[in-house]
Amino acid sequence: MGDTKTFIEARRTQLLEELSEFLKIPSVSTATHHKDDVRRAADFLVHKLQPLGFQTQVFETARHPVVYAERSLSDSVPTVLIYGHYDVQPPEPLELWTTPPFEPTVRDGKLHARGASDDKGQVYAHIKGVEALLEQFGTLPLNVKFLIEGEEEIGSPNLGPFIEAHRDLLAADIVLISDGAMAAPETPTITYGLKGLAYVEVHVRGAAMDLHSGAFGGGAPNPINGLAKMIAALHDDVGRVAVPGFYDTVLDITPEERVVFKRAPFDERALAEELGVSTLPGEAGYTVLERLWARPTLDCNGIGGGFQGEGSKTVIASEAMAKISCRLVPNQTPQDITQKLGDYLRAIVPEGLTVEVIELHGGDGALTPLTSPAVQAAGRALAEVYGKETVFARTGGTIPVASSFQKQLGADVVFVGLGLESDRAHSPNEKFDLMNYYRGIEVSAALLEAFAIEV
Amino acid sequence: MGDTKTFIEARRTQLLEELSEFLKIPSVSTATHHKDDVRRAADFLVHKLQPLGFQTQVFETARHPVVYAERSLSDSVPTVLIYGHYDVQPPEPLELWTTPPFEPTVRDGKLHARGASDDKGQVYAHIKGVEALLEQFGTLPLNVKFLIEGEEEIGSPNLGPFIEAHRDLLAADIVLISDGAMAAPETPTITYGLKGLAYVEVHVRGAAMDLHSGAFGGGAPNPINGLAKMIAALHDDVGRVAVPGFYDTVLDITPEERVVFKRAPFDERALAEELGVSTLPGEAGYTVLERLWARPTLDCNGIGGGFQGEGSKTVIASEAMAKISCRLVPNQTPQDITQKLGDYLRAIVPEGLTVEVIELHGGDGALTPLTSPAVQAAGRALAEVYGKETVFARTGGTIPVASSFQKQLGADVVFVGLGLESDRAHSPNEKFDLMNYYRGIEVSAALLEAFAIEV
Repeated sequence: MGDTKTFIEARRTQLLEELSEFLKIPSVSTATHHKDDVRRAADFLVHKLQPLGFQTQVFETARHPVVYAERSLSDSVPTVLIYGHYDVQPPEPLELWTTPPFEPTVRDGKLHARGASDDKGQVYAHIKGVEALLEQFGTLPLNVKFLIEGEEEIGSPNLGPFIEAHRDLLAADIVLISDGAMAAPETPTITYGLKGLAYVEVHVRGAAMDLHSGAFGGGAPNPINGLAKMIAALHDDVGRVAVPGFYDTVLDITPEERVVFKRAPFDERALAEELGVSTLPGEAGYTVLERLWARPTLDCNGIGGGFQGEGSKTVIASEAMAKISCRLVPNQTPQDITQKLGDYLRAIVPEGLTVEVIELHGGDGALTPLTSPAVQAAGRALAEVYGKETVFARTGGTIPVASSFQKQLGADVVFVGLGLESDRAHSPNEKFDLMNYYRGIEVSAALLEAFAIEV
Repeated sequence: MGDTKTFIEARRTQLLEELSEFLKIPSVSTATHHKDDVRRAADFLVHKLQPLGFQTQVFETARHPVVYAERSLSDSVPTVLIYGHYDVQPPEPLELWTTPPFEPTVRDGKLHARGASDDKGQVYAHIKGVEALLEQFGTLPLNVKFLIEGEEEIGSPNLGPFIEAHRDLLAADIVLISDGAMAAPETPTITYGLKGLAYVEVHVRGAAMDLHSGAFGGGAPNPINGLAKMIAALHDDVGRVAVPGFYDTVLDITPEERVVFKRAPFDERALAEELGVSTLPGEAGYTVLERLWARPTLDCNGIGGGFQGEGSKTVIASEAMAKISCRLVPNQTPQDITQKLGDYLRAIVPEGLTVEVIELHGGDGALTPLTSPAVQAAGRALAEVYGKETVFARTGGTIPVASSFQKQLGADVVFVGLGLESDRAHSPNEKFDLMNYYRGIEVSAALLEAFAIEV
């Protein structure tokens, strides 16, 4: 990696200036008045990728364009598709930023700007990683494709259909995603699995109108009490989800994974302290990290009904509502779990009440086998760059597009977070450590070389 | 009663206008921003009672004033104290009102407004009943006192101490309360017992901040799920309240009462249909009417936590809240039940969570012997006005001050509901049938005459 290091050392100022130029573009995808800025960010990428010998295309979608770039060597070498996004979260509240969100500023070795870590900094590190290899070898050791979208921060509404419609174009052996954090600072981390999601809204209804709890208490069915009883019945006494069939298709944690999880830098006591809780409860028989990373869970995300104002109101509400979501693991599907959850809720509704279950949204989880060549190659490459053992992780988060890559392209998906949890993604004063930016370039080059040799 | 009827017939429009004027005042006692409106309602009463020859006083309390008025004849006639309240419940949710809550509107012979039935309409019927007698006889047949408070809907926190401090001023043989419903339309009803109340607000807390349900699901304690579990544990499988010791002091329903209850015009199927529910669930072993009138109950009156907006947000909330109230029967006390409920909730809080139980308000129930002269005289007077047999009832409603009247003044307390259960007290589109308003004036005059002769 000496040569990539040299490439970086010789260009520190230029690398910072180029990323800063990217970050100055307020490509806020949710804000319609930034529509042109979003396109400028797409164009910026095209202008950076073309000089590196990439064939580029900007695909229109119903909202913001997809940037696609390809530099092919031959059919006999592996193909890696690097995915990222060039859109950013809204910067508000502006008054909490020390320096303006779209005026990138270095303080204490950290580059502050909206999108610095999520995801422009990580995307740009890969572009510069490719450039480092080209400068050293004049060519790349494998076929490289970039797929950089402008709608990630609004839920990637058009990317799933885009992938399905362009399976041949996007065909790849490995999909490399850098849009997140390493397990801890200076800790090489490969994330090989994420959870899916099934999210429903539940309405429980009793009488046709709100009732006086004195006049009707003891006779009227109470939707709040009923909903509470139903929610309570969603877990058993040892923290397992009690929805019949919920665990039927769950892929068990392998013995190898249990070993890997134990090696992860995770401290239960530290997490409990950080959250300000006495304990981290959950499903019996699993460690906290196993539950966070690899066991399906069910959480109420919201509840409401009756009188929530100041003071007291003696009412029996006619309706109560809850938002309930399940985080899924392979091979659970949102369709199946939503069906089972709905069937169960309809079966247990207390007498006198009715229930309506509304499907809000879902997404599949994704898992690349720990033992896959891509994961193993990536792990070794990272260990070499950092000079320490790579952490193999899963996460409870959901990136719906990940399963599209697996299903539509048949690719192994590898997540390499170049940022930190403390980067304040989505918050004021978002930042990206310059050390992690430069390291990310090194990581990118090392990953491409490793994939070329070992996959 | 011919003369009272004549009094009413000659003034229908004026009687409606006067009550409407009263109802336009948004005297919501629980809302601090309505404090001045509450006082305006008190002043309104003073301005109506003074011209009838009443000595009036407005007593300040820690929150809302008490209106007192007295018109004495002599020590040799009985004294009746008429109690009511001029404050009202909050009108929310406003969007469910057909016409605004403080713009009284007659539709289909019914006057719609917050407080129309509970309790401004009933209070005002008594003022007009007194006026009818004065117009006929130039005097009243007994000593009449009015005690009209502004804090009933927040649990009358200052009235108990007020009564205790003014026992001589308030001394009475009979306390007449109209703040409820007759057993059925056009059914003369004397209510001889009502329930008490213990109302608490419960906060369940988990992590110090809202958390991403993907990153922390399976590890973070969930206050909504925890609260639901706690609420579910408040009842057993046959609808009994599961708070330890809850039934310890409950006064059983007597065999005589079971007979009286069976004679009451109560139709379970009709009530279920009216409420739009398939069944009227509750404590096993008791009829619906026994539960409504004479068994203690527990209901959640409100619940809230996490994301309640449109769509989905994948959050684990740091806190959830519920409002929980118990309707009590003699000889349960709010102090004892609040303590037992709080102890139980603190004992069952799921691991990782904390609970805070805040006492909001409470009130004792009350029971007057069926055989008391006041109850019997009132029963006969009502039968004469309506031309049919009077129903003797209990109710699940709470008027905390009733037990103070019994204990402090030694008075027989008689409840004569002038409204209907279907008046939507505490709900949107509260109304008062104009027929019941006019009949209430007639009833008031008849009761005062009966008390003067028979007590």
